[in-house]
Amino acid sequence: MPYRAPISDYEFLFKNVVGFDQVAASDRFAEASPDVVSAILTEAGKMCEQVMAPLQRPGDLEPARLENGVLRTSPGYADGWKAIAEGGWIGMSGNPEYGGMGLPMTVTTVVNEMMSAACLSLQLAPLMSQGQIEALEHHASDALRDLYLPKLISGEWAGTMNLTEPQAGSDVGALSSKAEPNGDGTYAVSGQKIFISWGDNDFCENICHLVLARLPDGVPGTKGISLFLVPKYIPDENGNPGTANDLRVVSLEHKMGLHGSPTCVMQYDGAKGWLVGAEHGGMAAMFTMMNNARLGVGGQGVGVAEGAYQHALAYALERKQGRTPSGTIIDHADVRRMLMEMKADVFASRAILLANAVAIDMAQATGDADWTARAALLTPIAKVFGTETGIRVSDTGVQVHGGMGFIEETGAAQYYRDVRVTAIYEGTNGIQAMDLVGRKMMDGGEAAARLLDEIEAQAESARASLPELAGPVWEATESLREATEWLTAQEDMNERFAGALPYLRAFARVLGGHYHLAAALADPQGPRARLARFYINALLPEHSGLLAQAQNGSGDLFALSADELAA
Amino acid sequence: MPYRAPISDYEFLFKNVVGFDQVAASDRFAEASPDVVSAILTEAGKMCEQVMAPLQRPGDLEPARLENGVLRTSPGYADGWKAIAEGGWIGMSGNPEYGGMGLPMTVTTVVNEMMSAACLSLQLAPLMSQGQIEALEHHASDALRDLYLPKLISGEWAGTMNLTEPQAGSDVGALSSKAEPNGDGTYAVSGQKIFISWGDNDFCENICHLVLARLPDGVPGTKGISLFLVPKYIPDENGNPGTANDLRVVSLEHKMGLHGSPTCVMQYDGAKGWLVGAEHGGMAAMFTMMNNARLGVGGQGVGVAEGAYQHALAYALERKQGRTPSGTIIDHADVRRMLMEMKADVFASRAILLANAVAIDMAQATGDADWTARAALLTPIAKVFGTETGIRVSDTGVQVHGGMGFIEETGAAQYYRDVRVTAIYEGTNGIQAMDLVGRKMMDGGEAAARLLDEIEAQAESARASLPELAGPVWEATESLREATEWLTAQEDMNERFAGALPYLRAFARVLGGHYHLAAALADPQGPRARLARFYINALLPEHSGLLAQAQNGSGDLFALSADELAA
Repeated sequence: MPYRAPISDYEFLFKNVVGFDQVAASDRFAEASPDVVSAILTEAGKMCEQVMAPLQRPGDLEPARLENGVLRTSPGYADGWKAIAEGGWIGMSGNPEYGGMGLPMTVTTVVNEMMSAACLSLQLAPLMSQGQIEALEHHASDALRDLYLPKLISGEWAGTMNLTEPQAGSDVGALSSKAEPNGDGTYAVSGQKIFISWGDNDFCENICHLVLARLPDGVPGTKGISLFLVPKYIPDENGNPGTANDLRVVSLEHKMGLHGSPTCVMQYDGAKGWLVGAEHGGMAAMFTMMNNARLGVGGQGVGVAEGAYQHALAYALERKQGRTPSGTIIDHADVRRMLMEMKADVFASRAILLANAVAIDMAQATGDADWTARAALLTPIAKVFGTETGIRVSDTGVQVHGGMGFIEETGAAQYYRDVRVTAIYEGTNGIQAMDLVGRKMMDGGEAAARLLDEIEAQAESARASLPELAGPVWEATESLREATEWLTAQEDMNERFAGALPYLRAFARVLGGHYHLAAALADPQGPRARLARFYINALLPEHSGLLAQAQNGSGDLFALSADELAA
Repeated sequence: MPYRAPISDYEFLFKNVVGFDQVAASDRFAEASPDVVSAILTEAGKMCEQVMAPLQRPGDLEPARLENGVLRTSPGYADGWKAIAEGGWIGMSGNPEYGGMGLPMTVTTVVNEMMSAACLSLQLAPLMSQGQIEALEHHASDALRDLYLPKLISGEWAGTMNLTEPQAGSDVGALSSKAEPNGDGTYAVSGQKIFISWGDNDFCENICHLVLARLPDGVPGTKGISLFLVPKYIPDENGNPGTANDLRVVSLEHKMGLHGSPTCVMQYDGAKGWLVGAEHGGMAAMFTMMNNARLGVGGQGVGVAEGAYQHALAYALERKQGRTPSGTIIDHADVRRMLMEMKADVFASRAILLANAVAIDMAQATGDADWTARAALLTPIAKVFGTETGIRVSDTGVQVHGGMGFIEETGAAQYYRDVRVTAIYEGTNGIQAMDLVGRKMMDGGEAAARLLDEIEAQAESARASLPELAGPVWEATESLREATEWLTAQEDMNERFAGALPYLRAFARVLGGHYHLAAALADPQGPRARLARFYINALLPEHSGLLAQAQNGSGDLFALSADELAA
């Protein structure tokens, strides 16, 4: 089933749902007019359909492998990377001064989502570079930026992120990699890093690793961590890859999915590195990169959901079974239920994702603290709901296929296997939920309340024209408001954390209702209004059970001892 | 992580939750005293722990394969089968006249569940034989029974079920396999069957296929289908495997999981077969087999959930991360939430499964139509909730492992991949839900109402001692009753089917509350009451959103045309 880039959906969302007009009206992104954006998305969509989608299955069947220490990527991936790089899709939001397009994050987010739908394993490579580009733009010295950014943006070189160590996963502060000053302004970085996505490839001249490590005077915990840029080949005086650095790929992981993306164990043995940002300021630099990487991973989930939906719909339209008007399974109520759930959740998760991206762009364009807070609030929601939608929709896609869903040749199973990691990496979904009810509500829930006010105002104004849709959205928002107030009133953070993930899921459900309602308002007689009706009647009610769990506190969770859990 | 058979859980459920005492008190199963049953389960549990669990990963790494038409099973599987056969675990519920143990289905269900937890791929082999044994006991001629049953029960021979054809999956009536009378009482069976689990092996003398095919005068649809026993080797006059029959394994499927279980495409070219049951009565015979196979598949889901839970708990108890009292992740609220959800749902799904098995046993022991109706009502619920619990719990198990969950060596991913098929085979979960709101409610919902009466009576009697648990269970049951009345009032079956799966899920949630409450009543201060409290506070509320969806009707589902779905 060929992937088809859903350009008109993005255009509709930009225009009617997520308020992209504000971005386009800003001085900062004045060039991103609707016509220009549509042309860009159409071009990117073609590349995804024609170049990337055909690489999806080969990457699964012939995973990246290590041959005598040399990494060999899956068939066709080198050409795929070249197409991505030449299209300018790596550096879309990069600074034009270094060859980037300077486009809004909203546009980059859409292109990333399309690339994920077409071939998630390969898409992860430019996503890693994008994170590095952003970190260097914000935190690196002029010299480093001048040398590295043009190469990373052009795709001649690729970037990676090195955070995790065997004993330091969600608890990054426990890392033990070390950096010793060489006396010449550079550092000798040593340690082992695991789960390094695209830790190497055979299609770029150089691989640039951003590595978290501790300086000799770094205190224990996150406050003693610094960030270093450690290239595979040390650039010579002309900025070309020179001598090999003291680092290597030790091994590749054998994973459930995402086979085309090499997940590396990296060993650094006094490798030469350059400090990025301040000494002991590594976490701040990583957070810049991680926030947008989280948005990127949410987009991976949405993209895979779209791909899995298209794939399942095509099957349902063609699979003959039973005595129905069309003769195919599309006429069965339960198959329709599955397809409608998939389509409605793709829309909801995409809207949340793009609303988040718009907030990031507006924060950048205006410097307004409210936009910054909005972006920060939405990021964990976009990450969790996007990735859980990817998992749920690809699961439903397998089910639509019946027995064929379990057979690898069909392709439905690959979406299901590949996307599973998105709920884990870039901060597990549990970590995201703790971020939402913890850091993101240190304002006492003010940013959340502002968003809920907007949703209720929208619902109020929709009561006249679409009362049966506006009513449930308003009521669900009120329930969410109560839960938000309950949560922010808990001084013991464990009480918040106990219900964090169900709360986040309920928040996403309500946001989904908000954006579906916006779509219905824009097109009250059209198919989007009918999809919104299904979402609000059938899926939005899920929020009530989730909010009950969210406000249940930690008592029940810790009511069994470890021995009793094991009994 | 070694699997540990949860014997005390079964004993508790038998005694306090699912009323196994009634079975043991019946004449039919008088020998199944608590002591005898405990001894049997302990013995089976040891076999699962020591013999089967070590075969879980080798089956995944070295799948069954076809070498020049000869099927080679995974390493150690032949010894595993031998241990299962010698323990008597294939013919547990088989007629003692043919070597079976004549035990209640409830005991067989527990042993099957334990075997599924230990090694799902291998467990599927005896499950197939059990279905065949039951079908032959009920429908085959004396001659066939005398010849085949002792061999199947002893495990010298193995059984399979052949229903599906490429164009006939959920719609069995569309099958095109043919059977022509040979004139000597036997038939020549021809056709191609797909998705045949354990269609061959290299550790049994003979493989006995039950094949659905159409006689020359069979009408189209399910009413023209007959059932045939078609052995791989035609028994000679002494009942030993003689000449090879005209059938073969054409190929094996490449699946997402369950690699140790060969899924075969079978070709029959005039193979000699014997009629089982009446001419054109194939579906009746298959339904006998399928109803209990559905219970068996529900048990597979529960078993995998138990295995995945134990595996994740062990990891959580040993994985050091963050600054917590124990130093491990077990102290994090979100990890606790995941483990509590897993444990509470394992309990709920197991209770539903065993209540279903008790109803089957009581129906057999008493001939009481109410027990038969209870068993019929619970079967689709046990199948769907068991398998969805297997999927959900193994998904959560992956998440508990963090990054390690995506790495195959850890084992968490295998549960997730293996169990996915259980929601598909033996009638997809969508088909089960249609069965529940269709066939199983042709009584106008009477059997369901009787069960809801029992639940409410239990909740009423628990109000005095456990008011905060009894109240929510009673209220949820009332909501379920309203939804049941709404559904049964719909004359257009499409209105029922539209909400069938959400309705079934809500029914299971309420049943889970009922059985958790029973556990709490039996042990009001103990850990089971605390687990019940978590379930009722945190998970039971999910029913309300599901029931809203269940009663939403078909209008929203068909509100988009096929073109609009694709737009």
